[in-house]
Amino acid sequence: MKVNKKQFSTLWEENNVVKIIDQTKLPFEFVVIELKTLSDFCVAIKDMKVRGAPLIGITAAFGLAFSIKKNPSMSNIKKSYDKLVSTRPTAINLKWALNMITDDVKKIPEKNRIQRSIDIARNMRNNDIINCIKIGLNGYKIIKKIYDRNKKRVNILTHCNAGWLATIDWGTALAPIFFANRNKIPIHVWVDETRPRNQGALLTAWELKNENIPYTVIVDNAGGYLMQNKKVDMCIVGSDRTTYYGDVCNKIGTYLKALSAFDNDIPFYVALPYSSIDFKTKNFSRIPIEERNGKELTHVKFKNKNQLLVGEIYSNSVNTYNPAFDVTPSKFITRLITENGTIKPNKIDILKHSNK
Amino acid sequence: MKVNKKQFSTLWEENNVVKIIDQTKLPFEFVVIELKTLSDFCVAIKDMKVRGAPLIGITAAFGLAFSIKKNPSMSNIKKSYDKLVSTRPTAINLKWALNMITDDVKKIPEKNRIQRSIDIARNMRNNDIINCIKIGLNGYKIIKKIYDRNKKRVNILTHCNAGWLATIDWGTALAPIFFANRNKIPIHVWVDETRPRNQGALLTAWELKNENIPYTVIVDNAGGYLMQNKKVDMCIVGSDRTTYYGDVCNKIGTYLKALSAFDNDIPFYVALPYSSIDFKTKNFSRIPIEERNGKELTHVKFKNKNQLLVGEIYSNSVNTYNPAFDVTPSKFITRLITENGTIKPNKIDILKHSNK
Repeated sequence: MKVNKKQFSTLWEENNVVKIIDQTKLPFEFVVIELKTLSDFCVAIKDMKVRGAPLIGITAAFGLAFSIKKNPSMSNIKKSYDKLVSTRPTAINLKWALNMITDDVKKIPEKNRIQRSIDIARNMRNNDIINCIKIGLNGYKIIKKIYDRNKKRVNILTHCNAGWLATIDWGTALAPIFFANRNKIPIHVWVDETRPRNQGALLTAWELKNENIPYTVIVDNAGGYLMQNKKVDMCIVGSDRTTYYGDVCNKIGTYLKALSAFDNDIPFYVALPYSSIDFKTKNFSRIPIEERNGKELTHVKFKNKNQLLVGEIYSNSVNTYNPAFDVTPSKFITRLITENGTIKPNKIDILKHSNK
Repeated sequence: MKVNKKQFSTLWEENNVVKIIDQTKLPFEFVVIELKTLSDFCVAIKDMKVRGAPLIGITAAFGLAFSIKKNPSMSNIKKSYDKLVSTRPTAINLKWALNMITDDVKKIPEKNRIQRSIDIARNMRNNDIINCIKIGLNGYKIIKKIYDRNKKRVNILTHCNAGWLATIDWGTALAPIFFANRNKIPIHVWVDETRPRNQGALLTAWELKNENIPYTVIVDNAGGYLMQNKKVDMCIVGSDRTTYYGDVCNKIGTYLKALSAFDNDIPFYVALPYSSIDFKTKNFSRIPIEERNGKELTHVKFKNKNQLLVGEIYSNSVNTYNPAFDVTPSKFITRLITENGTIKPNKIDILKHSNK
């Protein structure tokens, strides 16, 4: 997507390094940083300079490939795998991407591993763009159907950021919105602020503004009220991990919005690539939920005289707890929008479409 | 309740003025300010130096009495009534308190109105304390029952601040918690941050800390996850207006927590004095919902080197919408805890207990 009229993706190779947009600085500053060492990649994921399940996976893949370039032995690959996989526990794409490389290169001679691993990472990056476009087109059809029925502006609520910043380009939950807008369907997006890190107010709002899409930021508390008052036609969110029973683990608070959509007969869609489906975990209560630092609640970034500062917004020494994700049971989800089609959130439909 | 070992209420008379705690400064600074003129009272309510339905009502009553002291004519009473009633539209106590005085003094000669209006305001203040104690005792029985059943620490989730700061003393939703703690029932409170104004993280946490009650502040998004994972035994919230069908208008986001409690079989209680019951509005969709300034989202207070500053936490010119309340339909509410007993949220039970 474009930033100040220049085409960007979230991660690309240039002069033998990987470059990323430092998302912790957005929207206040647009800063591109370089990743070279395994440690660079780990820090970028852990500190959320890159975030969003698909982008985390691809960043990890490049991290592993860069480590293999230095040392293609299996012992180094295993060590690097462990370091990368431990950066963030919930998004399944991280494991998926690392397994994809490891399972492949372990079967081939050391000397071939360097080229092979970077090829896989590059391929993954390209496929992510293609998958997001497919998700966008599949989701666009849903928005168009709602518009064709009412011929009124379609109001869409989204939580957190599942836009192009969460992927390489186009996004998951926002891709249908970008396509709808470019196809002149009148839309308006309710953007959940998404505490504690405010990715909605900071990243999603920024993406929508860049595309000239009308949007309004609301506190996470407000979605229920809007839905009760018929100000929301549909919800679309992303996913960090979806079980093959169709239960969706996503940014904390997603579940509350799904409950409210269900109570008000509003369709609730989840947009995701198949790489974020967990085919192993049956019971969603076994998905590891990341607990992040309480400082994400008590401290907030703000801009003051061109400086990006951090202010403590609670009183000293307030006790906090900061789980980063929750799970929305499949019964509250209307459909999953994937690159392989818009499917029901159940095992049969998920498996049926997995090999397309 | 005590602040630094000294007994305080939220509003009292001293040397012919009304004194209040400026709640916009808490917990960073403890500042007592004086209200003398009608305008002082209006600003205090509008700017939320006092907040919480019961306290708003009593502040307005004193405001009207102080205005009557200057000019007891019906034309001045009517003008003052209009000014006060327009400060905040949702909390019904405001209207209730102003009607209580106006309906009474209009029947008596001008010369008697000054004493009469201040007597009513004082009486209202005293009754508020008594009612909150009764609410506290009624709610305490519920907490005790849960404790007696499991003999484990009782985890209570609350939203916003319905503590003593929202009333004259003791509070509504927090009164049962204070009584349980003083009666040595082991409890722990999950405190919803309560964006946009963070009254949970700022005021409720401060109240609980002062009473040495274990608590943890969470973002508003987290309650659903906690309930799914059996970390909440009950919810208690306050109310700004309850219809006589038992639908509860309270701080935005309450509805989402009630949905989640319902989905997870967790009892959801609302603590309120009868003065916040609206016996006129049948359909809750007709309750006026206050829309507040979007700056409450984009700007946040923080302390820096002993100065209370305000920082802009979003990027410039982000569009916002800021409704302050939502309505939780009665079907999601277990019981209403009132000064007249713990009752079902329906017309029959509400009317039956209204004259006790």
